[in-house]
This record gives sequence, structure tokens and C-alpha cells, in this order.
Amino acid sequence: MTGLAAIRRAAVLAPHPDDEVLGCGGTMARLAAAGAEVHVVIATRGRPPRYSDAYMDRVMDEARAAHAVLGVHRTHYLDLPAAALDTLPAAEINARIGDCLDVIAPDTLFVPFVGDIHLDHQIAFTSAMVWARPRHAGAPARVLAYETLSETNWYAPGVTPGFQPNLFVDVSDHIEQKIDAFAAFESQAKPFPDERSPEAIRALATLRGATVYCAAAEAFVAIREIWRGR
Amino acid sequence: MTGLAAIRRAAVLAPHPDDEVLGCGGTMARLAAAGAEVHVVIATRGRPPRYSDAYMDRVMDEARAAHAVLGVHRTHYLDLPAAALDTLPAAEINARIGDCLDVIAPDTLFVPFVGDIHLDHQIAFTSAMVWARPRHAGAPARVLAYETLSETNWYAPGVTPGFQPNLFVDVSDHIEQKIDAFAAFESQAKPFPDERSPEAIRALATLRGATVYCAAAEAFVAIREIWRGR
Amino acid sequence: MTGLAAIRRAAVLAPHPDDEVLGCGGTMARLAAAGAEVHVVIATRGRPPRYSDAYMDRVMDEARAAHAVLGVHRTHYLDLPAAALDTLPAAEINARIGDCLDVIAPDTLFVPFVGDIHLDHQIAFTSAMVWARPRHAGAPARVLAYETLSETNWYAPGVTPGFQPNLFVDVSDHIEQKIDAFAAFESQAKPFPDERSPEAIRALATLRGATVYCAAAEAFVAIREIWRGR
Amino acid sequence: MTGLAAIRRAAVLAPHPDDEVLGCGGTMARLAAAGAEVHVVIATRGRPPRYSDAYMDRVMDEARAAHAVLGVHRTHYLDLPAAALDTLPAAEINARIGDCLDVIAPDTLFVPFVGDIHLDHQIAFTSAMVWARPRHAGAPARVLAYETLSETNWYAPGVTPGFQPNLFVDVSDHIEQKIDAFAAFESQAKPFPDERSPEAIRALATLRGATVYCAAAEAFVAIREIWRGR
Amino acid sequence: MTGLAAIRRAAVLAPHPDDEVLGCGGTMARLAAAGAEVHVVIATRGRPPRYSDAYMDRVMDEARAAHAVLGVHRTHYLDLPAAALDTLPAAEINARIGDCLDVIAPDTLFVPFVGDIHLDHQIAFTSAMVWARPRHAGAPARVLAYETLSETNWYAPGVTPGFQPNLFVDVSDHIEQKIDAFAAFESQAKPFPDERSPEAIRALATLRGATVYCAAAEAFVAIREIWRGR
Amino acid sequence: MTGLAAIRRAAVLAPHPDDEVLGCGGTMARLAAAGAEVHVVIATRGRPPRYSDAYMDRVMDEARAAHAVLGVHRTHYLDLPAAALDTLPAAEINARIGDCLDVIAPDTLFVPFVGDIHLDHQIAFTSAMVWARPRHAGAPARVLAYETLSETNWYAPGVTPGFQPNLFVDVSDHIEQKIDAFAAFESQAKPFPDERSPEAIRALATLRGATVYCAAAEAFVAIREIWRGR
Repeated sequence: MTGLAAIRRAAVLAPHPDDEVLGCGGTMARLAAAGAEVHVVIATRGRPPRYSDAYMDRVMDEARAAHAVLGVHRTHYLDLPAAALDTLPAAEINARIGDCLDVIAPDTLFVPFVGDIHLDHQIAFTSAMVWARPRHAGAPARVLAYETLSETNWYAPGVTPGFQPNLFVDVSDHIEQKIDAFAAFESQAKPFPDERSPEAIRALATLRGATVYCAAAEAFVAIREIWRGR
Repeated sequence: MTGLAAIRRAAVLAPHPDDEVLGCGGTMARLAAAGAEVHVVIATRGRPPRYSDAYMDRVMDEARAAHAVLGVHRTHYLDLPAAALDTLPAAEINARIGDCLDVIAPDTLFVPFVGDIHLDHQIAFTSAMVWARPRHAGAPARVLAYETLSETNWYAPGVTPGFQPNLFVDVSDHIEQKIDAFAAFESQAKPFPDERSPEAIRALATLRGATVYCAAAEAFVAIREIWRGR
Repeated sequence: MTGLAAIRRAAVLAPHPDDEVLGCGGTMARLAAAGAEVHVVIATRGRPPRYSDAYMDRVMDEARAAHAVLGVHRTHYLDLPAAALDTLPAAEINARIGDCLDVIAPDTLFVPFVGDIHLDHQIAFTSAMVWARPRHAGAPARVLAYETLSETNWYAPGVTPGFQPNLFVDVSDHIEQKIDAFAAFESQAKPFPDERSPEAIRALATLRGATVYCAAAEAFVAIREIWRGR
Repeated sequence: MTGLAAIRRAAVLAPHPDDEVLGCGGTMARLAAAGAEVHVVIATRGRPPRYSDAYMDRVMDEARAAHAVLGVHRTHYLDLPAAALDTLPAAEINARIGDCLDVIAPDTLFVPFVGDIHLDHQIAFTSAMVWARPRHAGAPARVLAYETLSETNWYAPGVTPGFQPNLFVDVSDHIEQKIDAFAAFESQAKPFPDERSPEAIRALATLRGATVYCAAAEAFVAIREIWRGR
Repeated sequence: MTGLAAIRRAAVLAPHPDDEVLGCGGTMARLAAAGAEVHVVIATRGRPPRYSDAYMDRVMDEARAAHAVLGVHRTHYLDLPAAALDTLPAAEINARIGDCLDVIAPDTLFVPFVGDIHLDHQIAFTSAMVWARPRHAGAPARVLAYETLSETNWYAPGVTPGFQPNLFVDVSDHIEQKIDAFAAFESQAKPFPDERSPEAIRALATLRGATVYCAAAEAFVAIREIWRGR
Repeated sequence: MTGLAAIRRAAVLAPHPDDEVLGCGGTMARLAAAGAEVHVVIATRGRPPRYSDAYMDRVMDEARAAHAVLGVHRTHYLDLPAAALDTLPAAEINARIGDCLDVIAPDTLFVPFVGDIHLDHQIAFTSAMVWARPRHAGAPARVLAYETLSETNWYAPGVTPGFQPNLFVDVSDHIEQKIDAFAAFESQAKPFPDERSPEAIRALATLRGATVYCAAAEAFVAIREIWRGR
């Protein structure tokens, strides 16, 4: 039996649609298959003029399709402005993310990594950590940071926080679901050698898997785990 | 349910007798109470002339009494020379520790922290990590480093590796067992304000507990966790 | 004789009332008892609608009472918006904090820790560091970062900056004053196992004390010390 | 032959005029002498009331003179508000810096260090890193962070990112040009022992030089280098 | 043109045969193809009874075959005892490695990473760094640490030094040579999902490539680079 | 008044003669001038055949002359084997260094930096930290690590522990004494641009001074300070 069996309700906080699939698509699929309730919280939505409403509707449709592939229980859309979280008061972001997580009440929270180059990722991380403060017995038992191709490897290794994973989830039986779910994001995928490609996703899963002797894995930085009593 | 429920057989590697109690006495008691098989591996034994045989026999008796309090399944004595692990070839230490762990075949391994000031702790940590390499599916699913009063806080914070815990175990129901087990080590306990005192042990448990909103906790650095499939 | 004897005028920068007591209440009491002039700078004040004026008046009364217990020479209120420092231009915060510190002209500056989870703490830290730049002989001789229960332990250990103290102040003779001062903050104290409780404060002081062999201590990260000539 | 010979077009991002000279004046001179095209991007301009237009015009004249000394090919002025980058949306800063760098299309990018105490430096660093993401074959082959006297040494060593250089450029033949170029900034230079003085500049170059056995050097943190094929 | 063009003579220090191929087989092939002289220094040789002479002869034959595939100019065998470098005086190891490197006089030195779990790797790293001290103008211009599957990912990420690469070499045209060279090590290869498998090697190259937008890359931590004058 | 005034008896641990001068010659001179008792502990002595007795006698004479310049109260010679501390049991080194420090009973201990490239420095650091454990009220109140030209800058910045100073001592009135003391080590000094040259020493002092606005300074990493009570 693994620590995964202890998860009943998980929430995955994604700054933008598809981060959740890149970071923990396989784990979500495995959790769902094991009977856990998996929620996704999409923090932002692109805004005109940079992103047209039609484009964003399409992306959101892709997210729905991807989440269906993975067995996501419910997706929550916060519609905060994409690539602009730094323009909002932190208290407002905290409130929006916190209110949503209060409703979900997950025992396990997946967050983007604070060392990702995208400010939205950094801000979402910190906001989630504020919500997850263990100030009461109902605080989440696990906070795990996932890695995001095209974000995590592009900051400043050795200078800004580096992603050095300490928790690996075997997703050998779910890697194809992950690839399929990402394929649903036609608007976001790019041809290899872009990091946002099926080839890069598969290579990462293969490498993380080999590190712990399984065919495919997703890797996380365990930020905090609490093994409560009784 | 918590990750602790996934543990069936745990091994605690202690460089010297009582490290295991200081570092994870409460967790051992909780695991034993939950039906897990808890093994302790005492890596070293003091040698004459520095430590007389009579003194060491007494310490080993104390260890037995302490482990009985905690519900330890079995204690393994490797009898490597205390405060002198640096004088042995690493391959020999690896073999001795590895052979013992091979027999125990724990799913969870508790190790001293590599940033402890005592060389024996640093060497035991690395030796255990060599054994725990996930080169096959039977490698331990969890490697957790514990903190040891009188070792962990006395190296060079900010310069040598610092103990920054990310995994907390609620031991509220077992803290008295921990204190009692440490009391069995009459030869090792010192009056407060020495760190090796019941007062310091209780203060640490209280602080680690308050950090995650429970009455008493033990804190760990999760070095590696693997959630295997199937 | 200790380094503490070199302090004639100290300033403690508190993002919110009670941070100064949690972080260095004992040290403030000891400094005051030794004849040093201790100033507190409260950077923010809660604003309606989140915090009513009546509530904030009460908190400020509590601060006054607490500071009287500790022997604080003077408390300075900057009334910047609480939990909203990120919404102000940094230059404005720098100016407000800097102007106040210019008037106090402390030889020693106590600041919150940059790794605290609260953005107000991070911003106050950086702002204080800007002021403390040693660009002239009158810059403060010591900048020490304190730890704050309910902030410092709740960010992301191992990923965000970790509090690894290197300077310890024996407050054995002043720990009761610290507990009493915190008790004055009736609106802020919580029942144990909340970190903001007398039990947690005492446990932390006991642990930090035991680390350096005294009954109670406060711990700091020494950010910069300058031993000027003549 | 050295890695420097691979540079055909370099861009130096300076938050404020003179940062580029303090950080890589010698390297710019050496590059120019070797026939490379050296661009400087001045990100900000001081604004009234803090900085009068007359004062800023003078500073910009000084920059022009300094750049002439060094052989700079072209200087680009973005005129973002000085000491106030934190008040702009990051997306806007990214766009302004990115558009300029797109036009220059440097193979090598010099950036301020993220651990500098000035927020403008931190923001400029991250903005440049966003632009430099290696999402296509034309991304810059080298991103090097320079050190800035009066910024890099005044944050919080050991707590915030520390400047630990791994790339050294011999500027023995160009150190006098660097000193001369800095002298052109009459409005910015200060008498020793201020860090912004010829004495400090020379001492830093001498120290960095001695570290790698040459008479004068500039030191950098290599953030990312890519040795592309063919 | 890239920094690679500046390399005329490279030395790759391998604690054990095949480390050099896992870590920089592609780069060696590319360097050789570009006309650089590539030397390999095999630091150790397994000894009876753990490794029979027949077995070691076979491994050395495999190394020869692998190096022929890559175009290695010459392989140097130091025959220090494998998995036992910690039993030799550091001065002796330094002398043996240093004497060999003195003869080669490389401008570029590839070393194993100090955070690898194998003590031989850690010791070889430090020994090479001692030799590479820039005490004279002839010290190597580049010291680059490579990553080794089955060593680098198995220590204690977040606690011991983590491999966070900052220099990437495009080996798209040489990845098949690398795979072939590794295939020559029949005695060392393992079936996937072991890290020492062609699948893992290819996945790592694909991932490192995608990070910098090329089909296959090897990644390094640049420890020190010196761009000397004239 | 500064923290320096609190020092009555200081011990400087030097792995090899002249480390103490390079690291804290100015501070020693200032302490002696202020009436403090300054002890130097030279841990090692070179041995034949690498170092002839005649050569070592000469070096020891140079040390005596240098210490006379600085006003050293007494120099203690431990005569452990130079460049070979790794061949001795750590317990033996701890005993030799500890016994000597027990006799001196310093309130302040200066140690080499653990990140220096020389193993003797690393071992001496750890050994001193073992002795300095605050297990009783008489443990030293300050442990400060100094930087050593030709050691501290030559390890692996960003990977091994980096020297990021947080305590600066103004030695403006004593820098000439330091230069003179180093000049006494005729056998150890090298012509610039070697780091072991008067020019490099002066440049480092000038840079460290400018950082805190004084003409010359020595910089330290404060490992632990204890401000005891009463």
C-alpha cells in the first residue's frame, strides 16, 4: 500500500489550463481510478485583447475534454486575469483561491512550483501556501509541488529555487491517459523539440520513472505532509 | 487516513543508542501501536578504553528497556566502533548496514540527518542512502531523516545542510512513551538546560506539534518517497 | 560581557502588532533592563471593512500594554495598510519606514524574516534592508532577523528561505515578561495547539535555550554586523 | 581561444545608467575591441519630482560619454520609471524589454543579479529571463549575470540569493577603460570608501583577477549557456 | 559559433568506466568530430575478490570499444581501487589524478558531480578541483560537471548538492553514437526501467534537449570558466 | 562600542601557518591593540619528504615573526601532518584540537571556512565546531569563519558552501600590520596576480571595507553567537 491510498479528495491548482495535466495528469488519472475525488482549480483566464474570448472558450473546452480523459470530478474556474496576477492585490488572490479551496476541502493539494519562471506560478504557489497553513486540524495533510514543462526548467537554476523532487508517483498505467489528455489541448501543444510536446512529456515521465525503477512516474517536491493522529 | 497507515515494516537506523528515541521515539510507538513491525538498527558500540564493556553493556540494557517501552519488534546491533566510523572503509560500513537492512527489508527507513555535527551520523546517513537506492521494486518506499537533539542544532546553520522539516507525525498519544523511553537511558540523560533532557524533548515535541496544530509531533525531512503502482 | 552590551538604541520593525513580542519580546525586555533605548515600529494597521476601527484601537491598546511590560521606550505607528503592503509602491514603503528609522537612528535593527509566509513580513524585511544599506558610517551596526510563530514555520521549508538561527540571546530572566507581554494581546492569542499560544512561545524559548545551554533564549539570523573602528 | 570569441552581438541590460559599467564595463570594452557589437539597454529613467529632467539629461549624457569610451555600438533607452518598476504590470515590463531585445537579437545577454537589493534589478533580471526562454533556436546562447557594487553586496547574504561567480573574464587590458567610463558618471561616483568609487571598482577587479590568475577580471554567474549544433 | 569551438583538448575524468559515456558521451563525440583531442581518465579499477581480473579486463575492453565509437584520442587508466577511494590518502589521489592531468594539459575538464551518491564520484570531483585551481595561466579554462544516471539522482535532493544544470550541449547529431558507445558496455547495461539503460539515456537526452529547443542535449553544471586575455 | 569590545580572549585556528594572517590578521592586530589576549593554534606541520625539516623550521620562524607584528599572545603548535588530516581518525584530531582549546578557553573562536577547497580546512572547521558545541555555559560565545585567499575562492561556488560574509570588522588602522605580517611569510608569498600576494590582500580588504563604508575590513561568516545572561 502507498501514501496515495490515503488520498480521498485532491485539489490541483493550475495557474493556466494544461499546467495541471503537464504537472500531474498521470497522478490525477491514477487517483481517479483509485476512487479519489479529483478537483482542478484553474486560477486564470486569458483576457482580450491578448486572448480573444473565442480562443479562451476553445481552451476551456480543451480543458474539459482533457479532464474527462483523466476522470476529474470537477473543474473550478476562477477567471483571474492570466499573465497578470501580479497586478491584483495578493489579498484578493488569496481570497479567491482560498474560498474555492474551502469549498473543496481537499486532504491533498497539488500546487505549481515557486521556482517556475512564470510569475503566475509563483503567486499561485504562495497563495495556496497561505490557504494551506496548518492552523486547524482540517488543513490539508499533503501539499505537493509539481513540475511544469516550459516553466520549471527555464528560470535560473542554482540561483532561484530549483526543482529537486523527493516524491515520485508511479504512473506507468496512466501515462497514455496523460498524453491523451495533453493532446486534447490542441491550442497549447507544440511540435518537438518544444517542451510542450508529447515527446518531451514522455521523456520526462520515462526519466522520472527510471529514477525509481518504474516505467513512468511523475515527480513532486513534498512541501509539507502531516500524519495526523487517530 | 494518513501515510502512516501504509507502513508495514519500518527500520530506524541509529548511529548510537538513544538517537532512535530522540529522533523518532513517538513515531515508533505510534507505528507499533498501529500494528507495524518496528526494527531498530544500532550501528555502533563504544569501545575500550574510551567506553568500558561494563558501561556499554549498561547502555545496551537501557536500549532494550527503552525499546520495550516503545514496542520495538527487534533491535539489531552492528557493533561498529562508535565515534570512529570515519576510520572504516565506507564499503565495509555499507556492507554491514546493507546486509542488516536486506534482512529486515523495511518499506520505510528512518535515518539520522546528514547535517548533524557527529561524523557517525553523516556517515550512517550516506550509507543508508546507498542501500536505499531505488534500483529495484523492493527498495524502500520512504526514507525519512529525523532530528537528534544535541546533534542537529550544533553544526553550522546556513553553511552546512540545515534541518528544515517537511513531514510531521502527530505523536500526541505517544509523547509520554517517548519521554519514558528516553528516561530508560539513565546514562545518557542530562539535566536541563542540556538538550538531552526531558524538558528539551518535550519542548521540541510541543513546538513541532504547534506548527501543524497538534499537541505533540515529531518532524522529519522526507528524503525520498515512492508511491509505487498496483 | 556580550555583544548585547554594545547596544545603546534598538529598533524593532514589526509588520503587525505582536510580531515584535513573538520575535524578540525577551530580548527587548533584557535590553531595556540593561539601559538601552528600545523602539518599536509598527508598520501597518488593519483597515475597514476587514478590521473595524474599534478592533484596531483595541489591538493598539494591547500593544501599548505589552510594550509597557517590556520597557519599550517608544512605539512608532506607521499605519500602512495591513495585509496589503504589496499594493503600495515599494518606494513609498521604503520612504515611510526609512523616515521613521532615520529619526530613531538605531545602532541595532531587528527585522522580520524574509522567509515568513506573510507578504507583509517579506516586504518589511526588504524595505528595512534598503534603509540599512551601509552607505555611511552611521548605518546600523547590527541587523538581526527574528522568527515569528505562525509565520516563519509555515512557508515552504527547503524551497523558500529557511530560518536557521546563528545568534542566540539568553532571555532566561525575561521569559515571563515576554509571556506576560503576549498575554496583553488578548485579541491575538489563541488556545494551544495554535502556534500563537503561551505554550508554543514557551516551548520555542525552551528549545532555543537548550540549544545553547540556557533556560530560555530567543534566536536570530544575523544578517549583517559591522564592528566599526575607534 | 576563449568562449568570448563566440560572441558576435551582446546586449547588456542595465536597470539604471552606470550599472552596465560597474557590472561589465571591462567585458564590454574587450568585446568591442574584438569586433563584437555591444548594445546597452537602459531600462529606466528617473522621474520628477525625485529626479529633475535636467538631472536625468545630465546622467544620460554621462552614459553616452561612458559608452563612447567602451566602444558601445548602440544604447537603447526604455525610459521606464526608475525605482518604481514594481508599480508596473510585469507583462508591460516584459513587453518593453522583450521588444527591445527582439530587435537587437543578441547571442549573449548580460543581466543584473536577482539577489541585488534593488527591486529594479530583481525585476529586470526576471523580465530578461522571460525573454531569454529557449523556446526557439534563436534564443540567446549565453545569459550571464553581473555584479553591481552598491547593490549586490547589500542584500542578505546567506538568506537571499548570493553572488557566487563561476565565469571570469580577463579585462586586464581594459580595466583603465572601465575606470574611465565610470569617471564619466560624475553624478553617480562617490568618494571612497563608498562602493561607487574608482578605488572599490579597482579592488574588485584586482580580487576577481587574482582568483583566476590575471591582473584584472570581471566575474559573472553563468545562468544558462547553450552550445547549439552545426 | 559556440563556446565548444574554443575547446582544443578536453579531459573527461571518470571514476569508473562508463561514467564518461553516461555523462558526456555525446559531447565527446561532437568534440572529436570537430577536431578536438578528447582524453578519458578512468580513475579506478575494480579489484578482487569483489571484481575478478577477468571481469575487469572485459570492462576495460568494453571501454576501449566505447571510446572508439566516440572518437576518443586516448584513454588513461589510473587503476586506483574502485569503491574504495575513501581508503586512500587524499594527497595520493590528488597526486595520481594531478600527474595524469598535468600530462594531458586539457583546456577543458569534465568532472563527475559532487552531489552524486557514490563516494568515488565525490572524491574524484574534489581531487579534480584541487588540480584545476587557477594558480597559473595554464589552468583549464573550463571545468564542467556532468550528470551520471544511477548516481546523480539517488543522493538526497534538497539536502545534498543538487544537479541544476546551467550549460547545455546540443548532441542531436551524436546521440546515436552515445547510445552505441553505451551498448559497448554490455556488462554495465541493465534492462529498463533501470537508469543504466538505453531508454533512460535517450529520455534524459530528449528532456535536456527539449529544455533548450534541440532534439538531444547533454547538460552540465559549469563550475568555473575563465575567458583569458589575448 | 562594538561587539569586538566583548572579546577578552580569542583563538584563531589555522590549518597551516599564514592562514590565520590571511583570514584575520587585521582583526588579531586590532584585538591585541584593544587589550584582548590573542592565541593562534597552528594545526599542522609539513612533513618530510614533501617538506624538509629545515623548510618547516623556516616557516615556523616566519610565523613567529608575523605573530610578533600582530601582537599575538601565544602560538600553539599541534604538529599534525599537513595536507594529510584526512588520514587521521577524526577522534584524534578532535582530541588534539580540543585539548588545546580547552587550555586556552577562548570566548571567541576564529575558524577556517568549511567551503575552502583544502581538506585540512574542512576538517579543521568541523573539528573546531565539535569542540565549540554549546553543551555548557563556558562554550565560546562567538564562532566566526574567516576567508582565506587561495582556498576560499577555489572550490565550487554555487555547489559547495559559498563564503557569504555577514560580519565585517573594520581594520583600517591595522591593514598595514596585516600586510607586514604576511610579508614575514617570505616562503609563502607569491608575486601578483597570485592570490597569496600583498596586492590581492589589499584588494580584498579594500573591497570588504567599501561594502560597509570603511577603508579596510575583514569579513567573516558568523557561525554562532551566544549572548549569555547576567
